[in-house]
Amino acid sequence: MKLEEIQNPQFLKNYDQEQLKKLALEIRQFLISKLSVTGGHLGANLGVVELTLALHKIFDSPKDKFIWDVGHQAYIHKILTGRTGQFDTLRQYKGLCGFPKRIESEHDVWETGHSSTSLSAAMGMAVARDLKGTDEKVVAIIGDGALTGGMALEALNHIGHEKKDLIVVLNDNEMSIAPNVGALHSVLGRMRTAKKYNKAKDELESLIRKIPAFGGKLAATAERVKDSLKYMLVSGMFFEELGYTYLGPVDGHDLEDLEENLRYAKKTEGPVIVHVLTKKGKGYKPAEQDIIDHWHGVGPYKIESGEKIKAKQAGPSYSRLVSDTLCTLSETDERIVVITPAMILGSQLQGYAEKFPDRLFDVGIAEQHAMTMAAGLATQNMKPVLSIYSTFLQRAYDQLVHDVARQNLNVILTIDRAGLVGADGETHQGVFDIAFMRHVPNMVIAMGKDENELQHLVNTAVRYDDGPIAIRYPRGNGIGIEMDPDLEEIPIGSWEVLKEGSDAVILTFGTTIPMAMEAWEILAKQGISVRVVNARFIKPFDHEMMLEILQEGLPILTIEEAVLQGGFGSSVLEYANDHQFHSTIVDRMGIPDCFIEHGSVTKLLEEIGMTTEAVVERTKKMVSTKRKKGLYT
Amino acid sequence: MKLEEIQNPQFLKNYDQEQLKKLALEIRQFLISKLSVTGGHLGANLGVVELTLALHKIFDSPKDKFIWDVGHQAYIHKILTGRTGQFDTLRQYKGLCGFPKRIESEHDVWETGHSSTSLSAAMGMAVARDLKGTDEKVVAIIGDGALTGGMALEALNHIGHEKKDLIVVLNDNEMSIAPNVGALHSVLGRMRTAKKYNKAKDELESLIRKIPAFGGKLAATAERVKDSLKYMLVSGMFFEELGYTYLGPVDGHDLEDLEENLRYAKKTEGPVIVHVLTKKGKGYKPAEQDIIDHWHGVGPYKIESGEKIKAKQAGPSYSRLVSDTLCTLSETDERIVVITPAMILGSQLQGYAEKFPDRLFDVGIAEQHAMTMAAGLATQNMKPVLSIYSTFLQRAYDQLVHDVARQNLNVILTIDRAGLVGADGETHQGVFDIAFMRHVPNMVIAMGKDENELQHLVNTAVRYDDGPIAIRYPRGNGIGIEMDPDLEEIPIGSWEVLKEGSDAVILTFGTTIPMAMEAWEILAKQGISVRVVNARFIKPFDHEMMLEILQEGLPILTIEEAVLQGGFGSSVLEYANDHQFHSTIVDRMGIPDCFIEHGSVTKLLEEIGMTTEAVVERTKKMVSTKRKKGLYT
Repeated sequence: MKLEEIQNPQFLKNYDQEQLKKLALEIRQFLISKLSVTGGHLGANLGVVELTLALHKIFDSPKDKFIWDVGHQAYIHKILTGRTGQFDTLRQYKGLCGFPKRIESEHDVWETGHSSTSLSAAMGMAVARDLKGTDEKVVAIIGDGALTGGMALEALNHIGHEKKDLIVVLNDNEMSIAPNVGALHSVLGRMRTAKKYNKAKDELESLIRKIPAFGGKLAATAERVKDSLKYMLVSGMFFEELGYTYLGPVDGHDLEDLEENLRYAKKTEGPVIVHVLTKKGKGYKPAEQDIIDHWHGVGPYKIESGEKIKAKQAGPSYSRLVSDTLCTLSETDERIVVITPAMILGSQLQGYAEKFPDRLFDVGIAEQHAMTMAAGLATQNMKPVLSIYSTFLQRAYDQLVHDVARQNLNVILTIDRAGLVGADGETHQGVFDIAFMRHVPNMVIAMGKDENELQHLVNTAVRYDDGPIAIRYPRGNGIGIEMDPDLEEIPIGSWEVLKEGSDAVILTFGTTIPMAMEAWEILAKQGISVRVVNARFIKPFDHEMMLEILQEGLPILTIEEAVLQGGFGSSVLEYANDHQFHSTIVDRMGIPDCFIEHGSVTKLLEEIGMTTEAVVERTKKMVSTKRKKGLYT
Repeated sequence: MKLEEIQNPQFLKNYDQEQLKKLALEIRQFLISKLSVTGGHLGANLGVVELTLALHKIFDSPKDKFIWDVGHQAYIHKILTGRTGQFDTLRQYKGLCGFPKRIESEHDVWETGHSSTSLSAAMGMAVARDLKGTDEKVVAIIGDGALTGGMALEALNHIGHEKKDLIVVLNDNEMSIAPNVGALHSVLGRMRTAKKYNKAKDELESLIRKIPAFGGKLAATAERVKDSLKYMLVSGMFFEELGYTYLGPVDGHDLEDLEENLRYAKKTEGPVIVHVLTKKGKGYKPAEQDIIDHWHGVGPYKIESGEKIKAKQAGPSYSRLVSDTLCTLSETDERIVVITPAMILGSQLQGYAEKFPDRLFDVGIAEQHAMTMAAGLATQNMKPVLSIYSTFLQRAYDQLVHDVARQNLNVILTIDRAGLVGADGETHQGVFDIAFMRHVPNMVIAMGKDENELQHLVNTAVRYDDGPIAIRYPRGNGIGIEMDPDLEEIPIGSWEVLKEGSDAVILTFGTTIPMAMEAWEILAKQGISVRVVNARFIKPFDHEMMLEILQEGLPILTIEEAVLQGGFGSSVLEYANDHQFHSTIVDRMGIPDCFIEHGSVTKLLEEIGMTTEAVVERTKKMVSTKRKKGLYT
């Protein structure tokens, strides 16, 4: 069957090995070709071609439930469930989502994006099934990296205890997003090599059976020795200790091996782990040869050579700049320690890792531990820097409140991917962090207007000694501004007037400053004089400047690429109100009370009405309201 | 030495077994006597008397660092570090904190309250030590229950990988706050019984040495068999797999056994687990005999009988009422499933557990898993109810955003201990949940004015089918109002006018309504007519009523027992502003931007200026401002 003709996975039931192999090849060619244009998570998907085919052959989706952890590896699942024709629009505005999406297909029963949620979701579905008395199978497919996330471990523990029928397919590719860390990883490593002990096991078992003593008084001991063999052979012992039936390791590119084990898992009672070994990027040389996983999430590339087709960027990547600035600072400040939850590559910390290998800790997918470890370092007068994506910081909210802010410890957060992120969509938008950090006592939150100010803010954060401080920066690259040669300190809570004006004030920060500057120019031509303020400290305010603005009685437009509820604009309202400026006109532009899907950032901003034109119109409206009310002095 | 004379733990170095035993007895008598008056965490502390003595004898605090997980078991540590004289003020306003507190003593190096943070903190301290080149020991003391928390497992994994010198004392009392759950628990159970295999081990080892075959070609296999013995004996295998040296199990009430093992741990390189078995409530009959842990956190009691001295309560406990209401609803609605993260007792779910054992899941200390498991259930058209303390809900923020709200699933949160909690202090105040949930799309958040409205809200939540809904309720007991015999549905987003008035409006909900009602009466006598509105839906608003209030131009006082930043009052400001009511006078009363310590709720409210008198004064001020401005029509 042609890929485009696939409506649902039923046809697989009658496919033999040869047909499946041919199909796997076609799918790989399709993905390599399509993603060379759209970009996407190539490596992870090439690794699970056979696994996905086997799953859909052995189980009956949508009756049986597949829960794809993280979800960026569900492309083949999308192909097999009738979505081949939509791949041209992958990760684009209103196009095919890069993750499972319930609205797209009845085969997508669970939506993901953040890691380590699949086991808990599967447990919920298994409990529902048993209470309802139905008989569907629930299958979670989770990577070895995702398994180190605390919530996956919580679920592993609970599932082992409850003994529900539930299948965990452990997709072990020895690297999650970056090469894996953690003790659990070396447990898996020992399991991977367990096969070679199989022969030794056979020899031993037959030997023990022959020992006369075991026939006699030591019979009970013999039973324990048999048990111990299982342990000795390592394979599965860790999971069996936790109450799972362990199957594997299975060659994840051998369809027969996969089918056999999945079939066995299907009829096994209680929780089962099927340990599948796969190779990320399988079948595409440039990806297979990539040992540090540049092929995790890729943009367009040339198929033959694997050469990446990159758009020209004005400035350096923000992530790289932060990493380089930390390198510079670490040379003279021995207190700095950098912690990343599995994002060395994403946050471009390779340079730091090379220069200061003893001072960079990749803790794996473990945001909670990362935050509290930083707090522990801070109690000992170190200067921990937690480098973390805005969206993943959500995982460490309690630790930020309870361990860092409450103890008022000098922990620095460098928050990557703050604001809209584009193609990764609603699970990755970094739009909540201001709203969930602003109410946390002792927090300082800042964002630079460009890469130059960002480097100064990172320096400022390292020199700040009065509690936690968060420096936000967007995904992508700087605007290409000239960089100051020396790092400066920016006074905490200081704002900056970028353009003078006397009819209205725009308060904004970070990525939305260019929009305000463009509007300033347009409005100036129309005779409206707007003051543009770089409100680089979201908390605390520049009290002097803020009070001055309020005393002048100017209408204020706040702009933020973040949620409006409880956000920066909301804090301007609170401030005006707390200082008895009850008649201040404030208009808040930002992200409304809904989740924002995938698409280019420009397109998304347009859709929610965050454009230069809107800034112009809304400013004019404020000024006109103010004039009508005769409130200008 | 008399307990009152202890300045620091130095004197223990020269204490022999007899002296230590005598001291342990004195400490137990002291705690049993003091806590009978003040209340406190008796059971946990009686369990660690010998352990704490041994720790302070073998290690050198404050140079060596003790990190007490959760921290409610640090009373003996407080006695040994010179705080005996302060026990009369335990958990009272400005008195001795019930948890470690850095400001109290240099021996308190880490503050806690929430569970499972100690390993991460210890890792941070160990990394700091190694980078600085100092040689202090870092010792985390963690209970078996806390070990099931995801962040502890993340840390366990990372520590095992990094192989830092770090001692984990696993205080295994077979129950954390309630009897423990989870597969890890049964692993610990097997370890506990491992001692009886010691003899079998000796027999087997000598036997194997005698088998001729092992001298020959199977030598390598023999080595593996030796390894396997370790596994067979179970003891410690789980932790050794993860890279730890395992010591134990140690009798936690045998001072010699404790000292020997801690001394060995102190000189062992790399991470060490000392598995200590203790008995909660040891040495006090009523507590020892308590198998379901009523002696975890207790109020005053009679020493002889153990009889609890209870203040008379007007109404039923809110927790109990919610549990009972869920029981009633579950009889006719088979979709309901209740999930609790180790809080069956705290949230008084025992009745539900007895009546619906298959529909109540205690997942252990695992808030993240609990939330996402609820989401999984909801995808299968069940009606999961996550019963969770406000402060612990902070742990599941990301799961609420990413798994529940983003998929707009019908998950019900019954949020216990919302608002100030009193004696447990700043780590337990439930004051952030409105601010961290209000900006989450699709959320409905409500709080009843009394126990009768609470039961109707729980019913409303179960019947609501359009996404997540959170019902908050305070710690403690209802006001003693008459209960409607039948459960009613309250229209989502509907507010209620409790008192009519035309000079100003008070918008409030839950526990602060009585304050508003009292103020109404006082103000009425002074000729000021105030409308009191029960704003029971914090999100969404009662649009009709809110617009009416704004159109009338009345000044608004908002009162909330929650943080002001981004809270309910803030959303009133947003609403007025979004609807162009720029001249509305709003005064927001609530919790300021700082952490609130322990003390009685009344005392704390007084300190932050939330009293009837303040409501009266602030209302009068608003009305006077409004009159001065001539803004009344």
